[in-house]
Amino acid sequence: MTQVRTTKPFIEVLSGRRQPVPPIWMMRQAGRYLPEYREVRAKAGSFLDLCFTPELAAEVTLQPIRRFSFDAAIIFSDILVIPHALGREVHFEVGEGPRLRPLDTPDQAEALGARADFGKLKPVYEALRRVRRELDPKIALIGFCGAPWTVATYMVAGQGTPDQAPARIMAYRYPQAFTKIIDVLVESSIQYLLGQLDAGADVLQIFDTWAGVLPPREFMRWSIEPTRRIVEGVRKKAPDAKIIGFPRGAGALLPQYVETTGVDAVSIDWAAEPSLIRDRVQTRVAVQGNLDPVALIAGGAALDQAIDDVLANFGNGRLIFNLGHGIQPETPIAHVDQMLKRVRAYQG
Amino acid sequence: MTQVRTTKPFIEVLSGRRQPVPPIWMMRQAGRYLPEYREVRAKAGSFLDLCFTPELAAEVTLQPIRRFSFDAAIIFSDILVIPHALGREVHFEVGEGPRLRPLDTPDQAEALGARADFGKLKPVYEALRRVRRELDPKIALIGFCGAPWTVATYMVAGQGTPDQAPARIMAYRYPQAFTKIIDVLVESSIQYLLGQLDAGADVLQIFDTWAGVLPPREFMRWSIEPTRRIVEGVRKKAPDAKIIGFPRGAGALLPQYVETTGVDAVSIDWAAEPSLIRDRVQTRVAVQGNLDPVALIAGGAALDQAIDDVLANFGNGRLIFNLGHGIQPETPIAHVDQMLKRVRAYQG
Repeated sequence: MTQVRTTKPFIEVLSGRRQPVPPIWMMRQAGRYLPEYREVRAKAGSFLDLCFTPELAAEVTLQPIRRFSFDAAIIFSDILVIPHALGREVHFEVGEGPRLRPLDTPDQAEALGARADFGKLKPVYEALRRVRRELDPKIALIGFCGAPWTVATYMVAGQGTPDQAPARIMAYRYPQAFTKIIDVLVESSIQYLLGQLDAGADVLQIFDTWAGVLPPREFMRWSIEPTRRIVEGVRKKAPDAKIIGFPRGAGALLPQYVETTGVDAVSIDWAAEPSLIRDRVQTRVAVQGNLDPVALIAGGAALDQAIDDVLANFGNGRLIFNLGHGIQPETPIAHVDQMLKRVRAYQG
Repeated sequence: MTQVRTTKPFIEVLSGRRQPVPPIWMMRQAGRYLPEYREVRAKAGSFLDLCFTPELAAEVTLQPIRRFSFDAAIIFSDILVIPHALGREVHFEVGEGPRLRPLDTPDQAEALGARADFGKLKPVYEALRRVRRELDPKIALIGFCGAPWTVATYMVAGQGTPDQAPARIMAYRYPQAFTKIIDVLVESSIQYLLGQLDAGADVLQIFDTWAGVLPPREFMRWSIEPTRRIVEGVRKKAPDAKIIGFPRGAGALLPQYVETTGVDAVSIDWAAEPSLIRDRVQTRVAVQGNLDPVALIAGGAALDQAIDDVLANFGNGRLIFNLGHGIQPETPIAHVDQMLKRVRAYQG
């Protein structure tokens, strides 16, 4: 008797097999543009309460799958759960983003505990297990973490800033202390990602939202190299782990990123130049992206054109259709339907 | 009797002749990091009062030249003087940036007057004349305007926003109305730049601060094409006009920008990938940049390293040494001295 093996189109693409219709999901697909999300969010206490309550986190993770049948679910969580587990308590100001106690002196960096309290992250694993049980086997489940650079920018500044200058200044002034922060984050991220695989994630994504503010030398040191170490560390225990990197704004540094880190795919932002990506990135790894989230807000003919551009630019190679950044809260749901219909009608 | 012609190293580089020591200036060199600027600023009423009072604008333009002997002075003004002259009154909230009445419907765009009231801009021309009279003939004088895309983003949103989504949405939804805004800005900018040349500017810079938020198709349409028309329009009357473009964040789209617009130089931000710039940009035009302004805040060995990287990356070609973006108010003056000493000691 032969075993029927259910293939996931999303995993197929990551494994080197282009799909005629590109698998599709959206960054921040579990979010405020959905009325069913807003309903659950209103019931939860704080944003972190929602992340750390397995039944609620699982519920909002599954909502966009039920509505849109995306090819992947991404666990509802936040990149700052790791600093939280490291004792740098995080809270979220409504409409303003995260707030932490800033960590911007060498002394504070040296005092940072080397090991996260992974007990605090158990609810994330539990949410993954719940989603896994309910998820159609054809749909991939994505776990994630922030890249050490991006997580460190929030830890140093204590919040988001226009171009994360506080962390850049600290990295220039106190490279040794900053290295300590990065090293702690590399180790914690490896453990956290392995925990997510163990709890049922098929794929891992590493979000480096602030990679684009770094000059080439610092990009190599603070974005590429720590990401490479995480990929290596995860694969030491889980050799087949599928990993997607997202160094937002990396531009012409993307080829170096994919060559060095060993990721299976990169997520690209909407401003990426297509021929560079085709010639020097998509030849090595799968590409995920890169619809302008603002085109999805605008809708109409402009949205159709923007979708067609993504398909024309990258559809001949291994593509996971996605946005170039997270979906915005004001996006009309009808525009998501319009996008899905058009992408799924693609004859590539 | 032969006439002694004073050459300006800055103009030499723009004219195709690399200088062994790269000429140097800093974006926002007349600014809050200087105590003498803060003193004048405190005497002026609003920020626009300072821009529109010729003796004060000339004074702050000359301050960094007196202190640092830069190779270029840039007239103290703002990119939003054109909307101001178009009847979209601008004011500046202290610490928050510009505020205008938003212009975000097709009706408002159609109602926009086609011609600026250039009478409002006469104080800028007068300030240029004053600076010209006092400036050492070896030092270049730069006039400037904002690129139509960037100016339009402020006109539409009425202020700066994290990624200027309001203008992007309007351009997607109402391309015809948005084209009207761009067309008005192209024509006004040509007249304004010609006026600045006439008043004594040697060089013109077009600041496209928000170019980097545009996908490739929109970058071509809203950044490159209007800039090309401005360069063409200026050169129709002033064939030898030297023009620098600064499409910040253009990344791998920079080669297309220089090929199409016809600028003599591009200013590049600190995250630019060096080999792309050397191989496909500096082969055609001069390159201006691209020290990380945050390295200039940090100082020390990290600043030396960052300076050396700029010189090593671009010093073999035509280079104007500058920052990758404006100098920040908290930058120590001693670090500017450190930078000048190191760049001027360069043996290229």
